[in-house]
Amino acid sequence: MNATLINIGDELLIGQVVNTNAAWMGGQLTARGISLQQVQVIPDEAEAIRRTLRRAMDESDVVLLTGGLGPTKDDITKKVLADFFGTELVFSQRVYEHYTRLSERFGREVKEEMRRAQSMMPASADLLHNAMGVAPGMWFEQEGRVVVSMPGVPVEMKYIMEKEVLPRLQARMNGELILYRVLCTAVTGEPDVAARLEDFENRLSPNMSLAYLPRLGGVRLRLTARASVRSEKEREDLERQLDEGIREMARLLGDVVYALEDISLSEATGRLLRERGLKIATAESCTGGYLAHLITSVPGSSDYYLGGVVSYANSVKQQVLGVSEETLRKHGAVSEPVVRQMVQGACRLTGADWAMATSGIAGPGGGTAEKPVGTIWIAVGNEKEQHTHLLQLGKNRLSNIQYTAMYALDVLRRRVF
Amino acid sequence: MNATLINIGDELLIGQVVNTNAAWMGGQLTARGISLQQVQVIPDEAEAIRRTLRRAMDESDVVLLTGGLGPTKDDITKKVLADFFGTELVFSQRVYEHYTRLSERFGREVKEEMRRAQSMMPASADLLHNAMGVAPGMWFEQEGRVVVSMPGVPVEMKYIMEKEVLPRLQARMNGELILYRVLCTAVTGEPDVAARLEDFENRLSPNMSLAYLPRLGGVRLRLTARASVRSEKEREDLERQLDEGIREMARLLGDVVYALEDISLSEATGRLLRERGLKIATAESCTGGYLAHLITSVPGSSDYYLGGVVSYANSVKQQVLGVSEETLRKHGAVSEPVVRQMVQGACRLTGADWAMATSGIAGPGGGTAEKPVGTIWIAVGNEKEQHTHLLQLGKNRLSNIQYTAMYALDVLRRRVF
Repeated sequence: MNATLINIGDELLIGQVVNTNAAWMGGQLTARGISLQQVQVIPDEAEAIRRTLRRAMDESDVVLLTGGLGPTKDDITKKVLADFFGTELVFSQRVYEHYTRLSERFGREVKEEMRRAQSMMPASADLLHNAMGVAPGMWFEQEGRVVVSMPGVPVEMKYIMEKEVLPRLQARMNGELILYRVLCTAVTGEPDVAARLEDFENRLSPNMSLAYLPRLGGVRLRLTARASVRSEKEREDLERQLDEGIREMARLLGDVVYALEDISLSEATGRLLRERGLKIATAESCTGGYLAHLITSVPGSSDYYLGGVVSYANSVKQQVLGVSEETLRKHGAVSEPVVRQMVQGACRLTGADWAMATSGIAGPGGGTAEKPVGTIWIAVGNEKEQHTHLLQLGKNRLSNIQYTAMYALDVLRRRVF
Repeated sequence: MNATLINIGDELLIGQVVNTNAAWMGGQLTARGISLQQVQVIPDEAEAIRRTLRRAMDESDVVLLTGGLGPTKDDITKKVLADFFGTELVFSQRVYEHYTRLSERFGREVKEEMRRAQSMMPASADLLHNAMGVAPGMWFEQEGRVVVSMPGVPVEMKYIMEKEVLPRLQARMNGELILYRVLCTAVTGEPDVAARLEDFENRLSPNMSLAYLPRLGGVRLRLTARASVRSEKEREDLERQLDEGIREMARLLGDVVYALEDISLSEATGRLLRERGLKIATAESCTGGYLAHLITSVPGSSDYYLGGVVSYANSVKQQVLGVSEETLRKHGAVSEPVVRQMVQGACRLTGADWAMATSGIAGPGGGTAEKPVGTIWIAVGNEKEQHTHLLQLGKNRLSNIQYTAMYALDVLRRRVF
């Protein structure tokens, strides 16, 4: 079974609202084995709705529409749908009563005329209850196709999808199932990963596919399997096929893999630290607090993160972290000896088992011939020993900050692991 | 001039990635008077790309494509485009050299074969430089239509849009001029701003419009004027009309306005600090480094930011910032006396003129009946005096962290100003 999603709304086209409905709906449909073939975002215009709906019905088994059902002027979907399906708008007592109750509950006075207009519904539509708002969903069937129209407000759309649309669609399906697993890698690029998986990909059975989803400082890999499943046993076989595929990928990729599920590097590293009962700290110059933020964006990170110092000025490196004045003078702030001393200082100050330190020229200005923008030192270790890395990155400040923080976290992950 | 946007990528259809590119592109096009008619999200499949592109060219002056340009198998856009425009893929020395430089810089070994394959480009395309990644943009013209293909990675797409695509499109539009100004407010909501601007908005002349662009912890307001301009004088009149409008809005809104241009609160505050020759520091508990990151994400922030402490554990609050054990025991870490002492400690440690401190329960767990999730204390000041604020926010960890950091920065801005 495949679907087209049509999101109606000028606000989506002028960039005022990010279309989070599409991602949520895509995820829900996929999880139930319904393949979302395309998403179409169109304005609140009768002609655009008619044309897009006509095409979508030619191409898909199911067409889901969101938006264009509220009480304001630019909402015209309901009339277009009634015309399209050759039916009339008729008064619905149930919708009227629901609207009246809602207005009373929220203490809003709504004119009788408005409430009556909102209660006119296409005669051939099956109305889907919307506990979260006024406008019900509308379920149409024609030419063996299903067309469902819902409000665009996320909480209303989700209610109608979960209570009505998804269960009804599932009941109509026979068999085809789409499952996937995700594997995450850190500090590696798409070409590198692709080279290591080339043979594996060529040997994939025809019902399986592999997709590369790059993000800053790593690549996520999604292995998808689809099959007509007629029994619980067949479903289990498909699950096993996927699990085996993911395990083989992990073997081929080695230690760049940080998780066999879709979680952040920060979360994966945090789990390791919690398991091992280790405490960590940070000493940041060029990453300016971003590394601490990456760590603390994970709920419960106070279990393993003690804290850190953002030593932006050299005076703070000296007075708070105890970096020696002589080392700073001799080697400069962006140097291996300085990041070593920063790690030592952070461990001494906080009592952590491990600390990470960064110092570099994030840019866009501040570079020299000897140390151009993008020159960054990282150290990971404790008071006794430190492992150091030199990065030569580009000129984009934010990318440099983010990549460096990811890199430092990944060095820690490998050491702790 | 009108446009269709085609976003290519399975990850967008299965709900793994939210399509933020569409909102950003819609906003940029709209701001330049180009009307985005529709957005189409389709899978990485040759047939879907061909069919969607064919239709989009029938309906729009400009077709923008994102996605499907990386070095892996599921990326097929380049071949489809070459076929579609009846041209061949030819080797581009420039792309090859750029790729080689990038691989070297990031220390990644990429096979010669892979680099050569990635450097094959449609002969009839004008290549658009991509400083942020490997794949260049491709600009095609046919039948009076423009078709541009770009990578789907947001930072790469934005670079190519800003440097190449938007200026070129603007050059093609003749006569009608669309100008706009942006004004930014902090720590205020849309309804509040709208109420203060209601009269102003009703009195706007018909060629002008006001848009609300909410973002976390504030609202940006975009005042747009459009007119057919035939002389430099008419252009100047339009500019003056806009400037007067923005000044009146600033008067009506008062001190929630932090800038009469589209810059971040962090940048606006940084400018004030630099002008006044002041140095600042941070002491963060619940914001966990994010406040430092907000400050240091601005180039040149080392002119006024000395550094700070992320005192996640109470032991770090005591030993590094000098918060008294008794205060912690008596009032708890999330309390007014503690944030006061954190500010004092940060100023003492770093020698800063001003410091900001945060301590709270970011969530989702960790709340109590007395101090529920979202209870956050902020202090801004120096060793002698501190101004404190108590926030009661929601349950979303990341929103709480971000809003708190913005709030602290805005308190500093008002004090320094």
